[in-house]
Amino acid sequence: MASLSDIAVSAAINCLSAVLFLVAFAILRLQPINDRVYFPKWYLKGIRDSPTSSGTYVKKFVNLDVKMYLKFLNWMPAALRMPEPELIEHAGLDSAVYVRIYLLGLKIFCPITLLAFGVLVPVNYTGENFEEMSANMKDLTYNDIDKLSISNVAPGSKRLYAHILMAYVFTLWTCYALFNEYRIVTKMRLHFLANEKRRPDQFTVLVRNVPPDDDESISEHVEHFFCVNHPDHYLSHQVVYNANALADMVIMKKTLQNWLTYYSNKFERNPNKRPTTKTGFWGLWGKNVDAIDFYTQQIETLTKEEEAERERVLNDATAIVPTAFVSFRSRWGAAVCAQTQQSNNPTIWLTDWAPEPRDVYWDNLRIPYVELKLRRLLMAFALFGLTFCFMVPIAFVQTLANIESIQKVFPFLKPLIELESVKAIIQGYLPGIILKIFLILLPTIIMTMSKIEGFIALSTLETRSAGKYYLFLLVNVFLGSIITGTALQQLQGFLNQSPTMIPQTVGVSIPMKATFFITYVMVDGWSGIAAEILRLVPLVIFHLKNTFLVKTEKDREQAMDPGSLTWAISEPRIQLYFLLGLVYSAVTPVLLPFIIVFFAFSYMVFRHQIINVYDQKYESGATFWPDVHRRIIIGLMISQFLFLGLLNTKKASNATYFLIPLPIMTFWFFRVCKGRFESQFKKFPLEDAMKKDTLEKATEPGLNLKMYLQDAYVHPVFKGAIEFERPRVVDEEENSPLVLTKRSFHRHGKQGGTSEDRMGISETSKGGSKAGPRVITAQDKLLTSKPPRLRRASQICGPLKQGYNFELRTFSHSFTESQNRIGTEFP
Amino acid sequence: MASLSDIAVSAAINCLSAVLFLVAFAILRLQPINDRVYFPKWYLKGIRDSPTSSGTYVKKFVNLDVKMYLKFLNWMPAALRMPEPELIEHAGLDSAVYVRIYLLGLKIFCPITLLAFGVLVPVNYTGENFEEMSANMKDLTYNDIDKLSISNVAPGSKRLYAHILMAYVFTLWTCYALFNEYRIVTKMRLHFLANEKRRPDQFTVLVRNVPPDDDESISEHVEHFFCVNHPDHYLSHQVVYNANALADMVIMKKTLQNWLTYYSNKFERNPNKRPTTKTGFWGLWGKNVDAIDFYTQQIETLTKEEEAERERVLNDATAIVPTAFVSFRSRWGAAVCAQTQQSNNPTIWLTDWAPEPRDVYWDNLRIPYVELKLRRLLMAFALFGLTFCFMVPIAFVQTLANIESIQKVFPFLKPLIELESVKAIIQGYLPGIILKIFLILLPTIIMTMSKIEGFIALSTLETRSAGKYYLFLLVNVFLGSIITGTALQQLQGFLNQSPTMIPQTVGVSIPMKATFFITYVMVDGWSGIAAEILRLVPLVIFHLKNTFLVKTEKDREQAMDPGSLTWAISEPRIQLYFLLGLVYSAVTPVLLPFIIVFFAFSYMVFRHQIINVYDQKYESGATFWPDVHRRIIIGLMISQFLFLGLLNTKKASNATYFLIPLPIMTFWFFRVCKGRFESQFKKFPLEDAMKKDTLEKATEPGLNLKMYLQDAYVHPVFKGAIEFERPRVVDEEENSPLVLTKRSFHRHGKQGGTSEDRMGISETSKGGSKAGPRVITAQDKLLTSKPPRLRRASQICGPLKQGYNFELRTFSHSFTESQNRIGTEFP
Repeated sequence: MASLSDIAVSAAINCLSAVLFLVAFAILRLQPINDRVYFPKWYLKGIRDSPTSSGTYVKKFVNLDVKMYLKFLNWMPAALRMPEPELIEHAGLDSAVYVRIYLLGLKIFCPITLLAFGVLVPVNYTGENFEEMSANMKDLTYNDIDKLSISNVAPGSKRLYAHILMAYVFTLWTCYALFNEYRIVTKMRLHFLANEKRRPDQFTVLVRNVPPDDDESISEHVEHFFCVNHPDHYLSHQVVYNANALADMVIMKKTLQNWLTYYSNKFERNPNKRPTTKTGFWGLWGKNVDAIDFYTQQIETLTKEEEAERERVLNDATAIVPTAFVSFRSRWGAAVCAQTQQSNNPTIWLTDWAPEPRDVYWDNLRIPYVELKLRRLLMAFALFGLTFCFMVPIAFVQTLANIESIQKVFPFLKPLIELESVKAIIQGYLPGIILKIFLILLPTIIMTMSKIEGFIALSTLETRSAGKYYLFLLVNVFLGSIITGTALQQLQGFLNQSPTMIPQTVGVSIPMKATFFITYVMVDGWSGIAAEILRLVPLVIFHLKNTFLVKTEKDREQAMDPGSLTWAISEPRIQLYFLLGLVYSAVTPVLLPFIIVFFAFSYMVFRHQIINVYDQKYESGATFWPDVHRRIIIGLMISQFLFLGLLNTKKASNATYFLIPLPIMTFWFFRVCKGRFESQFKKFPLEDAMKKDTLEKATEPGLNLKMYLQDAYVHPVFKGAIEFERPRVVDEEENSPLVLTKRSFHRHGKQGGTSEDRMGISETSKGGSKAGPRVITAQDKLLTSKPPRLRRASQICGPLKQGYNFELRTFSHSFTESQNRIGTEFP
Repeated sequence: MASLSDIAVSAAINCLSAVLFLVAFAILRLQPINDRVYFPKWYLKGIRDSPTSSGTYVKKFVNLDVKMYLKFLNWMPAALRMPEPELIEHAGLDSAVYVRIYLLGLKIFCPITLLAFGVLVPVNYTGENFEEMSANMKDLTYNDIDKLSISNVAPGSKRLYAHILMAYVFTLWTCYALFNEYRIVTKMRLHFLANEKRRPDQFTVLVRNVPPDDDESISEHVEHFFCVNHPDHYLSHQVVYNANALADMVIMKKTLQNWLTYYSNKFERNPNKRPTTKTGFWGLWGKNVDAIDFYTQQIETLTKEEEAERERVLNDATAIVPTAFVSFRSRWGAAVCAQTQQSNNPTIWLTDWAPEPRDVYWDNLRIPYVELKLRRLLMAFALFGLTFCFMVPIAFVQTLANIESIQKVFPFLKPLIELESVKAIIQGYLPGIILKIFLILLPTIIMTMSKIEGFIALSTLETRSAGKYYLFLLVNVFLGSIITGTALQQLQGFLNQSPTMIPQTVGVSIPMKATFFITYVMVDGWSGIAAEILRLVPLVIFHLKNTFLVKTEKDREQAMDPGSLTWAISEPRIQLYFLLGLVYSAVTPVLLPFIIVFFAFSYMVFRHQIINVYDQKYESGATFWPDVHRRIIIGLMISQFLFLGLLNTKKASNATYFLIPLPIMTFWFFRVCKGRFESQFKKFPLEDAMKKDTLEKATEPGLNLKMYLQDAYVHPVFKGAIEFERPRVVDEEENSPLVLTKRSFHRHGKQGGTSEDRMGISETSKGGSKAGPRVITAQDKLLTSKPPRLRRASQICGPLKQGYNFELRTFSHSFTESQNRIGTEFP
């Protein structure tokens, strides 16, 4: 066991590295040249313009204002200053609720820490178990941290009742905080949904497994079915093309275009020499050719192929998958269709809410029911294998990657390898590196598994991946750190033990691992979060792109990578901290302050990030909250079982009986919460749908919904390659007639599209322009024909960018009440 | 272990008792006086008239036709002769599917038995394990049954692969049979639902937890809510009164009336002496009074009280519970409301399909959401207690009921008790009798628990009780017989064992218990079923009632107790036989023929009973099938785990690995079936609803649905005490205008009501006649105004009762195609 001074050293190192990251961040973010790395969100919102357009030449790249450096921690209060309603408006409900998870951590653990330090630490410290034991055993070593943990209480001591009491208090408090938070988030969600602007997915249902029909095409069959079974509500539908090959071509073309740009830039800078490339893979081998000609010709070929493929898909009946987006005249009609069963065969005509258009994962729409079931089964086995046998393939690769095999495959390396020092490095570090590589690849593997499972929305993919990753962390990081041996060995051990022995086996090791987890919190938590804010990888990539690929402002915009909250990875990690905090709260309270620092620091960092950096790919309205809630309760129950096992070994079996109601009560609490709140995150009640419909009918009697929805769910490749990454819906949302957001005045497109495109006159956009431009036109018509009293909140001040200070005014439908003028200072 | 000859003796005894029961049944059922006990169904259908109305006086009571006695087993082919479609028409889908469970048993076990006897019995018999062992151990005893079981195969023998292979074959066959049966039952159900006549529950949704409103009464609030949120579909609603006290009074009055009839009859037979009674409990003590006067006066008082209570309930706003039956214009509207969430608070406005009016359990409609959750929690604990600690209270009562306590409570019994023989009987048999009493009470206890849980339909109550009873049987009969000790001790044992040890512990005892279970099958299965057909208790009660209470033909009808399938008890028992068959199929195949005899015999008996006796209280359309399917799969998986454990002890651990995929595959099969079929038993798809609506609209454009539904869901006590046990819905169904069933021509009421009442002119019926008679009138009007071409199938031949032979013609909407003329011979 590490001593207190070891911990202190580790803390010092980690604090230092965290501070270093922060200082680096503080300096880098002040440089105008990095502005697009650290404040991309404002660019996307159109509130900031490129810093290159003003000031002297040097000032464009380096910030020379010394005063700014002195206030280098200013971002912290700035991040905390934005009030929550505005945050929701600015970054979406998902992000706003995400940072609330950290806040919830603080709410749960601050009082618990105070109580634990007030009650348990004195009880443990005066327990004198170690002193007695060391009197008997000379070679027993113990340190101050051990003296503060439950290990210092003698077995069978009456002091253990204090721990039991505290376990109850902690559980009650946690449940109270959880319930309260669930209530608040539910309220936020309902408020958000009630005030949400018109979106195509509110009217649309995704129908899967349309059965084949001998006489009718899929499109006709869908139309007839819904005309018959939802006669008063059916509006229109959109068939789905299997355009996966086409989408690949579009991506390929983009890569080629990047290379072309790169070589053109190179040629421009050095007009004397035409750049050359090799025709092989990644330009590494093959014939030497003129690069610009080569790529121009490649792009031309691909464009032709793309056109042909586009034609083929649009005209080939077999390219239509048995899936359709069916739109209804009202939200009520859509809600009814999404929540009911259509056919008496439950494997056909499966209806569910359509995801947001930008949230659709198009590749999976073609999978039929039976295949889906098989895929889920296979992935269940794969997940089991991944979790419990993940060491097996690694060990296999590690054995393969020994010196002999390397010599066999690359005989020319032989002299190098046989050097003693190189040999040592390979033998010593290679296994570790392979493990590290695997761990880095893990999120990708898990996401691929979720994709294979066939989910059809990015949000679902992320949620499912988070569940898998959580299981992995729980088994391999938490249990794996406590008990040595691989997960498979653990599993075998558990199967051959009595079920009551498992918590005992694990529980006993818990106090001994406290110092390890303290170090883990500092390394993974503190330094990791500090690294997050520094954004080293996007910084490097941006500058690389900026140097080699950027020609126009538009290119620079594309080079900007704001990223988004990586839900599938971040959330399970937070859960690990919840688990650690809950497990150690009654055992070794010394761990708690470290957890609190993690939550507080993360809260600030992520609040800063969602305000200034991240650009979410979709908006689910916090549908993930039931998962968060459930996992915290799982953590709570694990902590209770382990504490039970620990107390059993403390010869306090009588006292143990007092603890048995605890997990039962907790489980009941979970059931109660589920009954009370969960459906608010899964279903859209008819009452709310009717309210929105009625309001809309009253305020916009002339709305042409059919036109509004016409191309909302067209596969992005048919909207023209130029608009590929920016589906139309966002434009539509911005043009929503009732309330105009500021965004519509500043810019209309994020990536791609000429300025005409962005203004909604995209008649020139290529391919699949089935209905593209018409929507905008209809919108515009509606805009201009609107009665004046509905055009509130449409006066928006421009981006008053004066010396990096500007005023931010929020005008939103949802928060018109809170039109406070907030002067947020940005350096 | 019992030897083969022991088994033979036991089989002989049980066969004898079964045959005795059958002979007694054959003789008793031929007596006209018992006709109403053994053929009540035909009386209820109006096809048979009372035998007392024809023939000579003696012939009215005793059958003198000797030839009839010779053909005493004739009922068996007669029971099998009725084709299934007709059976569904005659007895309902629930009953028809119920006997299919026995048929499924035959389908599963006949091929398994053949295979097991063809393959496993020779393999076991030549295993010679016992011969080897007995060569080593002199005192080892074994018998022929043991030689046929897996115990005769030496540990580690290659022969065990035959068992493993057979385990796979058996599982595959069982799954195939299960899947096939699920498919057939689903088809039957869909066909049944599609052809079902108009019923109020097709249009009605039960709304629970109507939130209180300051300004509106519950009725107004319901109306407004549904007018707003289902504007095109809402038709009407019916509030629910808390009339539990009133219902008690009605039952009480009925009892008093019975007593009055009893004494009037007594007086009529012996007009010289006015009968007297005592005023105390059950007439056992108290003042002696004139019985007829006493009961007349009591009834008068109660009638007044009843009237007052009825007035109070109808006028008191607090007597209205926050629950309502909401009816819609179409089945589509009702299906939508039942399947969707209404409010964003999932604890209010809870909607679900309304049960059939006769299926409603009125007492539970008043329970609010939170109370319901608490009740469920409490009952979960109670069920756990009942299952695992059920010996505790019995042991407690047994200790209380010893000689000393009896002496204390009843000192006057002292001299009697102190006789040696009496003492011995009390000490020897009392504990056994107490256990027996408890086991007899068990179904009632379980049903009470389900009632406390707050389910609102009789069908749900039965389904839930069946689940509880199954758990009880599984733990206390199956596991309890295999492992000695109470369930609680077993549980403790299991908790302290490793999970892989449990199947081993149980599995080892399995072959040793084969002879016990063979005896169990014969006693509980064979003799029990034979006793079922004899109907001894209803026989005695009918004759008692017939002697003392019957005055008119109507009274005789009321005295008749056809009974119904006791789903909550019978189904779990069948499941026990499935479990035994599956567990022993690969271990001791000798058990299988006994199981097959049970299934075949039960199939015949229950087919006879549902044709001739039972009168179902409700028709759920076989919604119970998913439960049956699930429990058989649970049995299958239990058998697999136990076989795995058994093989482990056979030192065939390598072979064991082959068995591991078996339970996983089985579970996956369960999931597949669930996905494929289950929703067809839970939800009513919109497509089907729309079809029925459209058909109805086309055939009956002038239907006044509002009037049809007006009093369908009125609490039975408000329909007038006379109609208490015969809710109107059955009449309405009979008057359904499209197709007239034969029933409407023969009789209209089953119990109660004068003949005028039955003809639908019930203007004279007392109290709560809010809308009672109007419905019938409207129906009649519709009947007469119907265009002639719709009045098909309305010619029905009367009951041609000639020498007990009559022709039965079926005319039904559902089976008009199969208008085969079936001459069913009834002795």
